[in-house]
Amino acid sequence: MELRIDALTALVGGKLLAGDGTKSVSGVAGLADAGPADLSFFNSVGYRKQFEATRAGAVLVTPGVEKGPDGVALIEVENPSYALAMLAREAEEAQQRFEPGVHPTAWVADDAEVAAGAAVGAHAVVESGAVIGEGTGIGPGTVVGRGVKVGRDCRIMANVTVRDGCILGDRVVLQPGVVIGSDGYGYEYVDGRHERIPQIGIVVLEDEVEVGANTTIDRARFGKTLVGAGTKIDNLVQVAHNVQIGKNCLIVAQAGIAGSARIGNNVIIAAQSGVNGHKEIADGVQVGGGSAVYRSIHEAGRYMGTPARPVKDEMRLWSALEKLVATTREVGRLRKEVDSLKGG
Amino acid sequence: MELRIDALTALVGGKLLAGDGTKSVSGVAGLADAGPADLSFFNSVGYRKQFEATRAGAVLVTPGVEKGPDGVALIEVENPSYALAMLAREAEEAQQRFEPGVHPTAWVADDAEVAAGAAVGAHAVVESGAVIGEGTGIGPGTVVGRGVKVGRDCRIMANVTVRDGCILGDRVVLQPGVVIGSDGYGYEYVDGRHERIPQIGIVVLEDEVEVGANTTIDRARFGKTLVGAGTKIDNLVQVAHNVQIGKNCLIVAQAGIAGSARIGNNVIIAAQSGVNGHKEIADGVQVGGGSAVYRSIHEAGRYMGTPARPVKDEMRLWSALEKLVATTREVGRLRKEVDSLKGG
Amino acid sequence: MELRIDALTALVGGKLLAGDGTKSVSGVAGLADAGPADLSFFNSVGYRKQFEATRAGAVLVTPGVEKGPDGVALIEVENPSYALAMLAREAEEAQQRFEPGVHPTAWVADDAEVAAGAAVGAHAVVESGAVIGEGTGIGPGTVVGRGVKVGRDCRIMANVTVRDGCILGDRVVLQPGVVIGSDGYGYEYVDGRHERIPQIGIVVLEDEVEVGANTTIDRARFGKTLVGAGTKIDNLVQVAHNVQIGKNCLIVAQAGIAGSARIGNNVIIAAQSGVNGHKEIADGVQVGGGSAVYRSIHEAGRYMGTPARPVKDEMRLWSALEKLVATTREVGRLRKEVDSLKGG
Repeated sequence: MELRIDALTALVGGKLLAGDGTKSVSGVAGLADAGPADLSFFNSVGYRKQFEATRAGAVLVTPGVEKGPDGVALIEVENPSYALAMLAREAEEAQQRFEPGVHPTAWVADDAEVAAGAAVGAHAVVESGAVIGEGTGIGPGTVVGRGVKVGRDCRIMANVTVRDGCILGDRVVLQPGVVIGSDGYGYEYVDGRHERIPQIGIVVLEDEVEVGANTTIDRARFGKTLVGAGTKIDNLVQVAHNVQIGKNCLIVAQAGIAGSARIGNNVIIAAQSGVNGHKEIADGVQVGGGSAVYRSIHEAGRYMGTPARPVKDEMRLWSALEKLVATTREVGRLRKEVDSLKGG
Repeated sequence: MELRIDALTALVGGKLLAGDGTKSVSGVAGLADAGPADLSFFNSVGYRKQFEATRAGAVLVTPGVEKGPDGVALIEVENPSYALAMLAREAEEAQQRFEPGVHPTAWVADDAEVAAGAAVGAHAVVESGAVIGEGTGIGPGTVVGRGVKVGRDCRIMANVTVRDGCILGDRVVLQPGVVIGSDGYGYEYVDGRHERIPQIGIVVLEDEVEVGANTTIDRARFGKTLVGAGTKIDNLVQVAHNVQIGKNCLIVAQAGIAGSARIGNNVIIAAQSGVNGHKEIADGVQVGGGSAVYRSIHEAGRYMGTPARPVKDEMRLWSALEKLVATTREVGRLRKEVDSLKGG
Repeated sequence: MELRIDALTALVGGKLLAGDGTKSVSGVAGLADAGPADLSFFNSVGYRKQFEATRAGAVLVTPGVEKGPDGVALIEVENPSYALAMLAREAEEAQQRFEPGVHPTAWVADDAEVAAGAAVGAHAVVESGAVIGEGTGIGPGTVVGRGVKVGRDCRIMANVTVRDGCILGDRVVLQPGVVIGSDGYGYEYVDGRHERIPQIGIVVLEDEVEVGANTTIDRARFGKTLVGAGTKIDNLVQVAHNVQIGKNCLIVAQAGIAGSARIGNNVIIAAQSGVNGHKEIADGVQVGGGSAVYRSIHEAGRYMGTPARPVKDEMRLWSALEKLVATTREVGRLRKEVDSLKGG
C-alpha cells in the first residue's frame, strides 16, 4: 500500500505545493503521530501547532496554506478530510482486491457454480450445488455448504462457514470465523433427557448485510432466520434460530438475540445486550449497552437497563441508586426519630 | 430436499385426499406463510380460517377434514404435528448425511485410524494417533489434533478444532467453529510479568454432548475438563479449564463458566450468565439469563440476578427497584415532615 | 505423553525409593484421584491420609518419606510441587512441539518468507509477502494474510485468521479460532443507510502477547490497534478498532473493549466486563467481572459494577440492595406513622 506522492496528488486531483513527489507514503496518521512514511491532513486552524511541528511525509492542506515544515510535501485540495476518506476507500479496495478464479488448492464440487469473475481462495471448499455470484470473493479456508447461494460482489473472508442451503444477497460481507446456518438450539425434555428438535430451516442474509468476526447466526427450525438488507452486525454476536431482524439495524459486539425475536428496521442493539426469545422490538428503537430486553418494546426511542426501560427512567433509577446507601441510612435515622416522637 | 407429494404421503403413512401427487414440496411453513412449494399442517380448528385461505402446496390434516382450498393437496394422517416432526427428523438426517470415506483433499496422518464408515471432509486434518469412530463425520476444514479420540456417530461440522489428546464420546455434535482443548487461561505473576502455567490436561465430552457454534472449551491444567453425557451447550459459550459439568445440563448462548467450577446434573445456565471460578452448583439448579453466580448454590431451584439469588427474592428486589425513585422522594418528604414535627 | 518412571526420576533429578522403574505413567492427578497410570505428589503432612490410600502409579515425595502404599513408586525430590511444575512445562512443550518445515498440503505464496526452523501445518495458507519467523509454528488450517509479519517462536494454533498487514512480535501465542485484523465496526449513517467507513489500519501484537480461542481483534481505521507486550487475553474477548492496550494486562473471557479505548499497563479486566468507546483506564486498575466502564478511570485500584465504581462503594451499594425490600417496607411504615403523628 505504498504510494508515490505525485501519484497520490493526481489521485486526489490536488496540487503539489512543496516537497518531493517521487518519495512515497504508506500509512495515514494524525499530524502529531505521523512519521515520514505517513500521509496526514490539516483541515482546521485549531491544529496549526501540530501542523507546524509535524514529521509527516505529506500533508493534505486547504487552499491558502502555503508553507509547512521543511521536507514535508504539501498537497492542496478543496476538502482534505473528504480527500482522505476517498483515499481510504481506494486503499481498502486495493487491500481487499482479489484475482478472479478458483485457487488451485480450493475444492469446488463439480456441480457448484462459480461465476467467472468470482474468486475462491486457497483451501476453500464449495460444496455440491452451491452458487457463487459474479465479483464475489470466498476467502481461504472458508466452507460454503451444499446448495448455498451467495450473491454478487460479496466479500466472504477466511475461515468462514456457511452451512447448507443458506442464502446470501449481494454485497454481503462476512468477516473471518463467521458461522451462518449452525443448528438452532432446540431440545425437548423427554424422559429425563434433552431430545434434539430438528432444525431444517435456513438463514437468509439480504443485500449489504455485514457480519463481524466469529459471530454466529443459527438456521431456523422451519423457514428462515432473516437479517434484513443493510443491517450491520459486529463481532461475537449471537443470533438464534428464527430471529427476524429488519433493515438497516446495528447489532453491536457480543449482543445476543434469542430464538424467534422480531426486530424492526433501523434498530440499534448496543454491545453486550440481550433480547429475550419471542420478543418484538419496534422500528427505530435503540437499546443501550449491556441491557436486557425482557418485554417487547412497541415504541421508538432509547431504552436501557435490566430489564430495559426508557433511558430517562433508567437514568432516574441510576441517580436513586447513587444515593441508595445514604437513603438507607436516612431511613434508619428517621426510624429512630419517629420512634422517639411517638414515645415522647 | 425436494419431495414429491405422493412420496411424502407414503413416508408419513397417510392418505392423499385431494391434489396432484406428482407435484413436489421443498419446504415447511405455517398455514398463513406457506406458498405452493411448502408443506403445512392443520391440527386445530382454531386455525380453520388460515386453512381455508392457505396457499400451501400440501397440508397434513386430521381425519375428518375432507375439503381444502382448490389445488392444495391434502394428506390425511392421525397426528399431523407428530408426522411433521418425523418428516423434519428425516429431512435433517438427509441434509446432514455424508458419504463415508476420506475426501481426496483431506489430510490424515498415516497412524491415525478412521473407521470404514466414517467420513473426513474436504481439507480436514486428522493428526497422528487420532481415532475417528464408525459412522462419524468430520466436516470440511476441521482439525483433529494428535491422539484425539472421537466416538461413533458424531457429527463434527466444518472448521472445528479439537486439540491434542481430547476425548469425545458417541453421538457428540460440534457445530462449526467450536474449539475444544484450547489452553486454559492460567498465569502466575512473577517479577512483574505473567508467566504461563502449563496446561497439560485434556477435555472430555461424554456421549451425546452437543456444542454450539464458536463455543470454546479449555483443556485442564492437569486431569480433565469434563462435560457430562447429554449436556447441550449453545453458541459462543466459554467453559474454562478444569470445569466439571454434569449430565443433561443446558448451557445457553454466551454464558461463561470460570475455571474449576463444578456444575451438577440437570442444571440450566441461561444466556449471558456467568459462574465464578471454583463455585459449585447443585443438581437441578436453574440460573436465569444475565445472572452472575458469585457463591456456590447448594439447593435445586431457580436463581437470578447479580449476585444470583432465589428468583422470588430477585423479583421482590426488582419490584423495590421499580419503586426506588418514588421511595427516595418519599424519604426526602418524610425527612422534612419529621424535622417539622420535631421542631413543632 | 507416556513416560517410564525411571526416565521421569532422572528428569527431575530425583531418587527412586520404591516401585518398578520400568513401568510408565501418562497423566498427573491429585493423590485422591490418581490411578495406576498417574503421577501424583505428596508435599504436605496434611495429605498423609490421601497419600497412604493413593492408587497413583508414582508419587513425588519430600526427603524423609520412606514408605508408601504397596506397588506405588516413590520418587524423592527436594520440592515435589516445583518438580511437578517443571515436568508440566516439559510435557506442554513436548505436546506442542512441531517438526520444522512446510507441510506438503500447506499453501505458501512464492514471495512469502518462512524461516528454516519454522513450521507451517497441514492446509495452512501463508499469503503473498507474509514473513514467518524462526521457531514459529503455524497451525493446520490457519490463514496468514498478505504482508503479515509473525515474529520468532510464536505458536499460532489451528484455524486462526490473521488478516493482511498485521504485525505479531516474538513468542506470541494465538489459540485456535482467533481472528486478528478483522474490519473495525464503523459506519456513517447517510441517507437512511449505514455506509461503511474504510478500515485500513492494522493490528500490532507485541512480544509475548497471548490470545484465547475465538477472540477477535479488529484492525484500526487508520494506524493500529495495539496490544502491549506480555498482555494475556482469554477466550471470546472482543477488542474493537483502534483500542490501545498496555503491557502485562489480563483481559478475561468474554470481556469487550469498545473502539478507541485506551488501557494502561498491568490492568485487569475481569470476565464479561465492558469498556465503553474512547474511555481511558489508568495503569494498575482492576475491573471486576461483569462490570461496565462508562467513564474513564484515572486512579489505580479495584472497580466494579454498572457503571463501574470503586469496589468499596459497590460493596456498600450491594449491601443496601440486600436490604432494599426491607427498606422500602420501612418507608411505607414510616409514612403511616408520620401521618398519624401529624394527624395526632
